[in-house]
Amino acid sequence: MGGKTVQMVLEYDGSRYFGWQLQKEEPTIQGIIEEAIRRITGAHSSLIASGRTDAGVHALHQVCHFKTSSEIAPEALKRGLNALTPSDILVKDVRHAPQDFHARYSAKSKTYEYRILNQPDPDVFVRAYAWHVPHDLDFAAMKACMDLLQGRHDFTSFRASGSTNVNPEREMMRSELHRSDEHHLIFVFEADGFLRHMVRNIVGTVIEVGQRRFSRDDFVHILHARDRRLAGTKAPPQGLYLTMVKYE
Amino acid sequence: MGGKTVQMVLEYDGSRYFGWQLQKEEPTIQGIIEEAIRRITGAHSSLIASGRTDAGVHALHQVCHFKTSSEIAPEALKRGLNALTPSDILVKDVRHAPQDFHARYSAKSKTYEYRILNQPDPDVFVRAYAWHVPHDLDFAAMKACMDLLQGRHDFTSFRASGSTNVNPEREMMRSELHRSDEHHLIFVFEADGFLRHMVRNIVGTVIEVGQRRFSRDDFVHILHARDRRLAGTKAPPQGLYLTMVKYE
Repeated sequence: MGGKTVQMVLEYDGSRYFGWQLQKEEPTIQGIIEEAIRRITGAHSSLIASGRTDAGVHALHQVCHFKTSSEIAPEALKRGLNALTPSDILVKDVRHAPQDFHARYSAKSKTYEYRILNQPDPDVFVRAYAWHVPHDLDFAAMKACMDLLQGRHDFTSFRASGSTNVNPEREMMRSELHRSDEHHLIFVFEADGFLRHMVRNIVGTVIEVGQRRFSRDDFVHILHARDRRLAGTKAPPQGLYLTMVKYE
Repeated sequence: MGGKTVQMVLEYDGSRYFGWQLQKEEPTIQGIIEEAIRRITGAHSSLIASGRTDAGVHALHQVCHFKTSSEIAPEALKRGLNALTPSDILVKDVRHAPQDFHARYSAKSKTYEYRILNQPDPDVFVRAYAWHVPHDLDFAAMKACMDLLQGRHDFTSFRASGSTNVNPEREMMRSELHRSDEHHLIFVFEADGFLRHMVRNIVGTVIEVGQRRFSRDDFVHILHARDRRLAGTKAPPQGLYLTMVKYE
């Protein structure tokens, strides 16, 4: 395990992939990039991301790092990786980082966006890039829920079922809902970290508030109850984008 | 061959398909829809489109028709087709048409758009939905070429190689170039008909004018020469959209 720590920024369309994490039989982002690095440097390097995106989830700005004894220049590595990887993965930036840089542990915040197509008919061109919600939504009630999430909370109610081994408290620096045009809504979440499925569980629950299945008071109750059986249905993966990772 | 003529409007993402026209081994739009009609009505119907889109070409508004003796109501047929077809095909409208309606021969004009992503880096999310042209382009020169195309012309120079059996004259009602935002260009063509590959050959040639490989005078010469060996390289399919078909 040698010399240099290399830090990269990736953009990917997650539609075709079984998520970030290496799998034996299925294509994953980690698998594709590690194989390309091996072909360029001649040695295996383990790639560590700021966080593991799930199958179908996209990234506009995913940060990852690996260690290598290769002397290849970052710009040449970037060109080589882009030549070797499919067109749904783009290596946007490659640079040398301080020896102790860690894509996950050094991160100060991550930002996710979740996109909703809100119109009666589906749209064939965004089926893999947004969640189609055909119902009328109470935008003001949804915005009120998003406001409630700001600050430090125990997000147990919105974590994935079965995941109990990490501290469920997170600092939510931004939680916003925007109408980007007549038919598109965008949720924005920036936090010091996210529990597994947390964004998708929050979005699914806020959408149920928008559909008036839950009230704003129900939402407060769900957040404070620390009981993951209370939240709404998890939103599907294709609306979710990792859009930024910030470091010191 | 019975009773009713049914007219439909389709939207589709052509990425996964080998074009409109039925093929034995490969998925095509015609093949998918004809099979769904057969499952709903119990009988085969031949589907005729306003024009056959090529592999990878998209449609926001493709019109097609078929004849059937089925008594099924248009609204029920629409629901059934949307339930049976994949999410990259959307049946937007189904209605009964006059007995002699013909999706191709009754059409008065068709409109195509061609989308260009014009920035140094590719974008993983539009790789299947626009042509990535990284070079600086002379927008004014390209616009001048588009203006020249208006009116009645012999488009032999821009037809597909090997297709010689139809009259190459077409009436171009609109030929425009717009900058939709900083990094996106949109070509719009409305004509009484299009020769095979005509839009892609025109766009490829106009882009070469934008790159200053051809001058505006070269473009005039190419158009008037009626010689398909002179035009530029054909633009790739993924930027092309059939956006409207007009009838009387």
